[in-house]
Amino acid sequence: MKIVIIGGVAGGSKTAAKAKRLCPDAQVDIYTQDTHVSYSACGLPYYVQGNFEDYHNLIIRTPEKFRKDGIGVYLRHRVTKIYPENKKIEVRNLETDAKFYVQYDKLVIATGAKPVMPDIKNCHIKNVFTLRTVEDGINLRVQLRKSKTAVIVGGGYIGLELLEAFVANKVRTTMIERSRHIMSILDDEISELVQNFVETLYPDLTEVITGEYVKEILGEGYVTGVKTNTGKVIKADLVLLAAGVEPVVDIASEAGVKLGKTGAIKVNSRMETNIKDIYACGDCIENIYSMTGIPAWIPLGSNANKEGRCTAMNICGHPEDFEGVLGSAVTKYFGLTISRTGFTEKFARQNGFDTVSVMITKKDKAGYMPDAENVTLKLVADKRTHQLLGGQAIGCGDADKRINTLSTALLKYVTAEELSGADITYAPPFSTSIDPLISAARLLAEKLQK
Amino acid sequence: MKIVIIGGVAGGSKTAAKAKRLCPDAQVDIYTQDTHVSYSACGLPYYVQGNFEDYHNLIIRTPEKFRKDGIGVYLRHRVTKIYPENKKIEVRNLETDAKFYVQYDKLVIATGAKPVMPDIKNCHIKNVFTLRTVEDGINLRVQLRKSKTAVIVGGGYIGLELLEAFVANKVRTTMIERSRHIMSILDDEISELVQNFVETLYPDLTEVITGEYVKEILGEGYVTGVKTNTGKVIKADLVLLAAGVEPVVDIASEAGVKLGKTGAIKVNSRMETNIKDIYACGDCIENIYSMTGIPAWIPLGSNANKEGRCTAMNICGHPEDFEGVLGSAVTKYFGLTISRTGFTEKFARQNGFDTVSVMITKKDKAGYMPDAENVTLKLVADKRTHQLLGGQAIGCGDADKRINTLSTALLKYVTAEELSGADITYAPPFSTSIDPLISAARLLAEKLQK
Repeated sequence: MKIVIIGGVAGGSKTAAKAKRLCPDAQVDIYTQDTHVSYSACGLPYYVQGNFEDYHNLIIRTPEKFRKDGIGVYLRHRVTKIYPENKKIEVRNLETDAKFYVQYDKLVIATGAKPVMPDIKNCHIKNVFTLRTVEDGINLRVQLRKSKTAVIVGGGYIGLELLEAFVANKVRTTMIERSRHIMSILDDEISELVQNFVETLYPDLTEVITGEYVKEILGEGYVTGVKTNTGKVIKADLVLLAAGVEPVVDIASEAGVKLGKTGAIKVNSRMETNIKDIYACGDCIENIYSMTGIPAWIPLGSNANKEGRCTAMNICGHPEDFEGVLGSAVTKYFGLTISRTGFTEKFARQNGFDTVSVMITKKDKAGYMPDAENVTLKLVADKRTHQLLGGQAIGCGDADKRINTLSTALLKYVTAEELSGADITYAPPFSTSIDPLISAARLLAEKLQK
Repeated sequence: MKIVIIGGVAGGSKTAAKAKRLCPDAQVDIYTQDTHVSYSACGLPYYVQGNFEDYHNLIIRTPEKFRKDGIGVYLRHRVTKIYPENKKIEVRNLETDAKFYVQYDKLVIATGAKPVMPDIKNCHIKNVFTLRTVEDGINLRVQLRKSKTAVIVGGGYIGLELLEAFVANKVRTTMIERSRHIMSILDDEISELVQNFVETLYPDLTEVITGEYVKEILGEGYVTGVKTNTGKVIKADLVLLAAGVEPVVDIASEAGVKLGKTGAIKVNSRMETNIKDIYACGDCIENIYSMTGIPAWIPLGSNANKEGRCTAMNICGHPEDFEGVLGSAVTKYFGLTISRTGFTEKFARQNGFDTVSVMITKKDKAGYMPDAENVTLKLVADKRTHQLLGGQAIGCGDADKRINTLSTALLKYVTAEELSGADITYAPPFSTSIDPLISAARLLAEKLQK
């Protein structure tokens, strides 16, 4: 059996490694246009920031290790076309520009996601960056250390993580976000809190502009600044474009692979596309929310790893279903943790749910412990069934613990009432005797019962 | 309606406050032999250690606040007898030694737990302490600051928390535990790890002796040391007895209130004892494991609070069931977190389960993050149903998050296979792309499927 995998970051490299373990006799080859495989893309902002010095730390498995295990790795090889009827792909060697064809028995599309290129004039001059690959990280880190000012276009996860990186390096940074708030993936009242925190933590180094967008990059050859739609000019020695990501689906789609309503590749629970012997996994596929079956595109390394594993299991004759995701995610901005699982209230309403929600702020530990900090929790439930639909937590306290505790409850359709009976560990350095999550669940249950 | 509550720490004071809110017209009175009500007993070790200076921080509601809310508080009043047929109690004022009787419509027994007094000679001389009340904490803290050496009898939660307090104050301390390991409430392989950590962290200040017990306290008037059953003599300026706790059930039991097989008071899910109009809550009652209905005595502040609330709801005509507990608990020894939920493997086996378990050690965060630390996880499942029965986690990494994530899964009878599909938040500062809990669940699922 010949297994060909397109893309080698999280989903692709996980598929390869697991498939080779399960079917040692199979030929397993990874083709990627990238110069690296099997790296932690989520770790790039922390490398840029300088939390560690050597980018090799981000690499989970080197090409040499893959080859030693009998897995072929073709770096700088772009797959340009899929021929499902002949079960072959067209590959271009980006070094030599040579074109050739490769047969497959099973094809895995793990082409990932790429930064959305916003419609900005003069976008391709020097020191305008996106962050996707290890190379991007290396280049950005070098330029960051030479810069005094920067602009970040977009206030989502990556924008925020790089804002921390920039500010930690004492680079005065302006974040420009088109929506009303940064972190607009969260409910408004939560994103407002994030934004307040960002604006007040290092006011000398940080400016946040919302409801505005960059029209033009300024500079000849090298960036010198940006101009917004209102004519504002902001100086910058570097510009980072982090205006969202989109699934890489072009060659899949050209070959007749069906996309879902989110624009990402549609797969079934066995990671199969609509075309026989073509699987897909990782950031290029559409997920399903396990609480409800609603499709959503949630490109995260945690999902990609599980999907890669599941793809390999199914290819190698160990049928396994990937039951869906909850959209659990976490990030931080210096001391502030931002975490979520399940639906935001706005997503739930967009999808026709009649929601009831509560938001509370409590200490994360016994108030007399010197390191007790606040955590703000929002819980969302369905009005009719009382089933919990999701939660968001932010704070300098331990917000992430509460969200993960909620996440396994969502797996099993727990109601607000049931969650209020949860048994959460308590000791003064870890929690309050009634954990903030229990308080929130109780308050929500009371509101639902009215 | 006249509601009389015996005991006023967590369960009793919660019942009082909630009942008064629900039934403002009821007369609510707390009788306690203690000098304080409504305090965080779990916080006493941290007060002793010096994490904060003022013991008033431990007090949640003062007697004055209770009285302002219309709740009677009778400190230093010991209830000596219950007359269920006449619905009255006998009370002794410990200051004046006066005896009197109080009528009730609803009686709540919240007498809590007390330290087991081990069978040790000369136990009642000065500077031999137990830790139960605020007074105990104040006295222990004063003596600790005058001491150079100490002995702790017992290596459970309280013993360990006070070992940290003593060692942090540079008092050379010997812990003596009768069992083979300290923290013997955990499975052996986990308690061994705890013990290794304790023995190696501050070897100049700490000695742990296991499989031995104290026979005699040495000293006349003031403690000077202890002698063990093997004749070992250990010098000590103070001795702490922390050889376990037991439910305070004497007056309840004399009045005909039924005890469960654990020796604590048996209640139904509405917190009613076998005698009409007598309720019980807090550390004096027997709990039920919600996964299985097996009775267990799990005296914890988190449970007591929930039980107190539930008692008040039922007394005040808002029927509510307390569905049971999971035995979730956490403590720490300096940087080491020790956390558990559900059954240990030995408890499961003692109760007739055919168990399968796994234990893994992984980084709690992406390995390249400078503050990544280990967490060791043990998961236990039932061999036939694959239902998870419990988990234990220890480590300098974030062990508690994993246990709480597991705890809500236990609420809903989740199997190892289902847990391996959990969606846990991932970002390099918070987790690994495949969280240690997922890794453990997968390994367990594979082992179960063999």
